Amino acid sequence: MNVAVIGLGLIGGSALRALALAGHAVYGYDADPATRATARTAAAQAPAGARWQVVPTVRDAVARAELVVIAVPLPAVPTVLDELANVGYTGLVTDVTSVKTPVQLLVEQRLHRHNRLASFVGGHPMAGRETSGFTAADPALFTGCAWVLCLEPRVTALTDWLDLAALVTSLGARVVPATPTEHDRAVATVSHVPHLLAAALAVTAAADPLAGTLAAGSFRDGTRVAASQPELVAAMCGGNAAAVRPALDAVLESLQRARAALDAGEPIAALRPWLAPGCAARTAWPPVPGNPLELPARADALLRLGRAGGWITAVADDRRTVTAVRPVVSEPAG
Amino acid sequence: MNVAVIGLGLIGGSALRALALAGHAVYGYDADPATRATARTAAAQAPAGARWQVVPTVRDAVARAELVVIAVPLPAVPTVLDELANVGYTGLVTDVTSVKTPVQLLVEQRLHRHNRLASFVGGHPMAGRETSGFTAADPALFTGCAWVLCLEPRVTALTDWLDLAALVTSLGARVVPATPTEHDRAVATVSHVPHLLAAALAVTAAADPLAGTLAAGSFRDGTRVAASQPELVAAMCGGNAAAVRPALDAVLESLQRARAALDAGEPIAALRPWLAPGCAARTAWPPVPGNPLELPARADALLRLGRAGGWITAVADDRRTVTAVRPVVSEPAG
Repeated sequence: MNVAVIGLGLIGGSALRALALAGHAVYGYDADPATRATARTAAAQAPAGARWQVVPTVRDAVARAELVVIAVPLPAVPTVLDELANVGYTGLVTDVTSVKTPVQLLVEQRLHRHNRLASFVGGHPMAGRETSGFTAADPALFTGCAWVLCLEPRVTALTDWLDLAALVTSLGARVVPATPTEHDRAVATVSHVPHLLAAALAVTAAADPLAGTLAAGSFRDGTRVAASQPELVAAMCGGNAAAVRPALDAVLESLQRARAALDAGEPIAALRPWLAPGCAARTAWPPVPGNPLELPARADALLRLGRAGGWITAVADDRRTVTAVRPVVSEPAG
Repeated sequence: MNVAVIGLGLIGGSALRALALAGHAVYGYDADPATRATARTAAAQAPAGARWQVVPTVRDAVARAELVVIAVPLPAVPTVLDELANVGYTGLVTDVTSVKTPVQLLVEQRLHRHNRLASFVGGHPMAGRETSGFTAADPALFTGCAWVLCLEPRVTALTDWLDLAALVTSLGARVVPATPTEHDRAVATVSHVPHLLAAALAVTAAADPLAGTLAAGSFRDGTRVAASQPELVAAMCGGNAAAVRPALDAVLESLQRARAALDAGEPIAALRPWLAPGCAARTAWPPVPGNPLELPARADALLRLGRAGGWITAVADDRRTVTAVRPVVSEPAG
């Protein structure tokens, strides 16, 4: 397959390498000339048969592409969509940004208004790292990682979705079907709110030098992501504000109940039942994969699978079925 | 030195092993016969010269002791103090529990009421792990870890404090001087509140199976300590309720400001200045040790050192000076 990757940071660079290693013809572009030079040098050092081309314009990258992977930060997505519209690209487009409803909206405003022929399936590989940039790119980054591909029953062409799912599963990722709204709600809780908690904790502790000296494992892990660039975290959380608000409210509501337990006459006894469900939930995570099963390749069945915490590991060549995995639901203890 | 260790869990067992390895005569006791048997078997397998004795009663353990290390959970501390009072122990006593004001109060009520001769210096090695029990004990657990030794100017005998500090620094730990109040306030922020945040996040995410499947690094780290036993976390946070309340309030107040930023017309722009100080704080952590310096072994100088985030690495043989380290204060960026 001919694939163009636009944006060669950690995710784009890793996709470029993984696709090249899987035998695809890959064309990479980055707006930064220095990144292009780094990626070009790396291509020359890659094993024969796993090389990619680095090209100087978006037009060059997409000229022969059947698939365009947009791997730029959210604020740069509109420009790339405009460029795709301008060059009259008519193939499949996906992206890797961490919010999906805003990107879907941008696609409708920018790409589909000018170019009804191009089709779009939003994506999000859950493969962040503290490291960033092409030099951190790793073709094995997606092995075993969850990679959401968005499916809106009346909007997404199922054949496009299945083609992309076949490609992404071939890179070793678990493809998770979800609507953009479902995706944005889930990542608000498991990815965006954790960044807010980490920042609040880090800044509170900084008021007391003794606290910084006594801080150990629970502080280190609880604040790790607070070291992320504020610019990127603000774009991520603020770009998903509609979903982050209720997710943060749910956590705050839970913490208010802990606060009330601390005010109780017997705080130890009052905290115990508040703590137990969180312990049970964390002990049951990550979900244990059940046995693979065959599912019909239909939008409703795929979305039900995603809502149940499941994913697919392969798409049949005839595109009629998928190999699906549902997590084993653990029996509540006691 | 002859040392009795009462309670042979992770911390007590590690102290037992570390003290034996450092050449001290160590007597271990645990209320659980199975733990005593495990510790006895391990002693036989330890290198000659680094063995300990396991004895069947507290009385046997403290018979020859110059120092008693109480390494039982907070709820079991009163019983141990009563036993020490009953056997008429008159040496130095320390503990390793994670709250210090309540223990100080128990010592006054239980030990000093009956036995004015025994002296007490509260301690807390910041060396928690997810693993627990004697089988997880490790003589190197304290290497480089912060170990608070409490110092109340008009209550603590400075010579006792310095003797204990000399012993603890000889195990490779950084001794941090603090009053019980200062200690409890600091650990509320860096250890107890993180457990509450982790539990609230874990239980909120559990409501959505899709979220569990998409959860990756930020969720894994942000919830790690939620898997701790609710019983222990409730005892830890509830036992320090007076200090946890204002620490949790400070974090909640910060999160309310993030919530307001999410409601702003431009949430990305509004979140950026909220996130920046947390990033700066986390990037500056852990504190970088400055050059060692000599300080007079006086309570006021030691407590000032602790408040500035410093620690001591050695006590002079004549007990007149200590080797101290202050963290390097980084210049704010920009």
